[in-house]
Amino acid sequence: MAAVTIESIRAAAARIAAHAHRTPVLHSRGIDALAQATLLFKCENFQRAGAFKFRGACNAVWALDDATAARGVVTHSSGNHGGALALAAKTRGIPAHVVVPEDTVPLKVAAIRAYGASVHFCEPTLAARDAGAERLVRETGATLIHPFTHPDVIAGQGTATLELIEQAEPLDALVAPVSGGGLISGSAIAAHALAPELAVFAAEPEGADDAYRSMQRGERVTDVVAATICDGLRANLGAVNFAFMRAHAVTVLPVSDAETVAAMRLVFERMKIVVEPSSATVLAAVLRHRAHFAGRRVGLIVSGGNVDLDHLPWQ
Amino acid sequence: MAAVTIESIRAAAARIAAHAHRTPVLHSRGIDALAQATLLFKCENFQRAGAFKFRGACNAVWALDDATAARGVVTHSSGNHGGALALAAKTRGIPAHVVVPEDTVPLKVAAIRAYGASVHFCEPTLAARDAGAERLVRETGATLIHPFTHPDVIAGQGTATLELIEQAEPLDALVAPVSGGGLISGSAIAAHALAPELAVFAAEPEGADDAYRSMQRGERVTDVVAATICDGLRANLGAVNFAFMRAHAVTVLPVSDAETVAAMRLVFERMKIVVEPSSATVLAAVLRHRAHFAGRRVGLIVSGGNVDLDHLPWQ
Repeated sequence: MAAVTIESIRAAAARIAAHAHRTPVLHSRGIDALAQATLLFKCENFQRAGAFKFRGACNAVWALDDATAARGVVTHSSGNHGGALALAAKTRGIPAHVVVPEDTVPLKVAAIRAYGASVHFCEPTLAARDAGAERLVRETGATLIHPFTHPDVIAGQGTATLELIEQAEPLDALVAPVSGGGLISGSAIAAHALAPELAVFAAEPEGADDAYRSMQRGERVTDVVAATICDGLRANLGAVNFAFMRAHAVTVLPVSDAETVAAMRLVFERMKIVVEPSSATVLAAVLRHRAHFAGRRVGLIVSGGNVDLDHLPWQ
Repeated sequence: MAAVTIESIRAAAARIAAHAHRTPVLHSRGIDALAQATLLFKCENFQRAGAFKFRGACNAVWALDDATAARGVVTHSSGNHGGALALAAKTRGIPAHVVVPEDTVPLKVAAIRAYGASVHFCEPTLAARDAGAERLVRETGATLIHPFTHPDVIAGQGTATLELIEQAEPLDALVAPVSGGGLISGSAIAAHALAPELAVFAAEPEGADDAYRSMQRGERVTDVVAATICDGLRANLGAVNFAFMRAHAVTVLPVSDAETVAAMRLVFERMKIVVEPSSATVLAAVLRHRAHFAGRRVGLIVSGGNVDLDHLPWQ
């Protein structure tokens, strides 16, 4: 298993401090009343490039030595990681190449280009994404920054929980979305280093429930074909990420897309913040799986805010 | 002129501290680059009841003596002040009556009811609103809390600028929307007490430009029939509010609805916060009237976030 520890998360926090935002923690009396719990929302939708992904990408980019960095970075991404890596590369003044599935939300493609990266389209399969990224590595000498298995990415993602616990402790539980598993891995490592008794939950769409099935079966399930409106949560869980989830006894909480859309609307209405569907899974999970949270102080990672405002999902 | 001073604003701040949020000040690199200025957004969309109006209503409610308070409060409002007064009355456990024009946004009517106030519909004219409120005062013995001329309301609204200057000083300029003029009056009084050189601007829809015309003409213009998507900015400027605007040499900056909608969308996309059209006028004004703001540090009061999410104006 890749070595990601609280020390590497603290090192990541120091490395990204000059570039990433320390995002606020918001709270809503109205939503607390609905959930019958105290919910503390770590607002990574306010993070640079609009999502927590900037933390991991920034850490990975700035961890490279100068000679390696100068050759640039490559990744594949259905959106937020691509934008995040593009911006992170820009903060260091190095080239970035992003392999993007053809079905990616246009807003996210535009963001990647706006940050100055080269966009390379591929078929929307994991194999095509991997192949495209490997070809770019061969051709350019750039370093592959995998969106969720790279240890520096996982450590960077963990910095959100490091901050959240400083801002909102004591917490009884933590909920983050799971897709490839970079965020949940970093979150669990940070959480248990600082608060060993804290219960860690992963919110996952029912239509992309490979993490749920993997944890139930005790081995990684890789044949789930994602069907969910949560465009940020369609990746399959990484092997290293699955290992971290088992090591930290993460409980996966499935949510339907309808529950996610209702939660997303509630966040817009009551909290007055813009979140993408993936981010709303955490509130959907708290509202559906109430027995885990009633009467407790719960930290929720609001993962991002990059939503197509012309096509909000309740419309 | 009603006596509203920095002392009454400071007293209001102390009076409402236990009930109102100290809202955050947000900042966007992307929007700064577009505006070529440093913009500090005071996020009253995160205020309780979703708008700055809670500050004034709360101050007015808690300034009443116990016997008077027990008879309740009355107001007329096209929306946010009604919700704010309803919630303020609830914090003190007293009755609230709100006279509401029939064409008010349904979301705002629902909010007033949700806070426990009695809603009384009237025709959408100022005369009908006044008559309805006066009748309720006679019938119930409750105290009329006018939405923008009441000195305790003006003092309460000024607390947003008091906080903003503490959070973001030094500022070169301040921009707030103008409708009846409660917010701009309180803002100008607070701003000039703390920073006499600070330039104070009012953003106003071209379709409801009575404040602009009044300031140009040097006397209050009361015959403008409002036609704007900014449902919070359709009231005519109050006499006392006009006097404060003149005393503080407030410059009114007109904006078109199209400019407001574009600015509103920009705030959703870049800042990831939900704002109502009225709130977006301030950014629209900064982007249109660039000569006043280029290279300066500008505070903007984001007045509220109570928008109908089923009918966003760019859709």
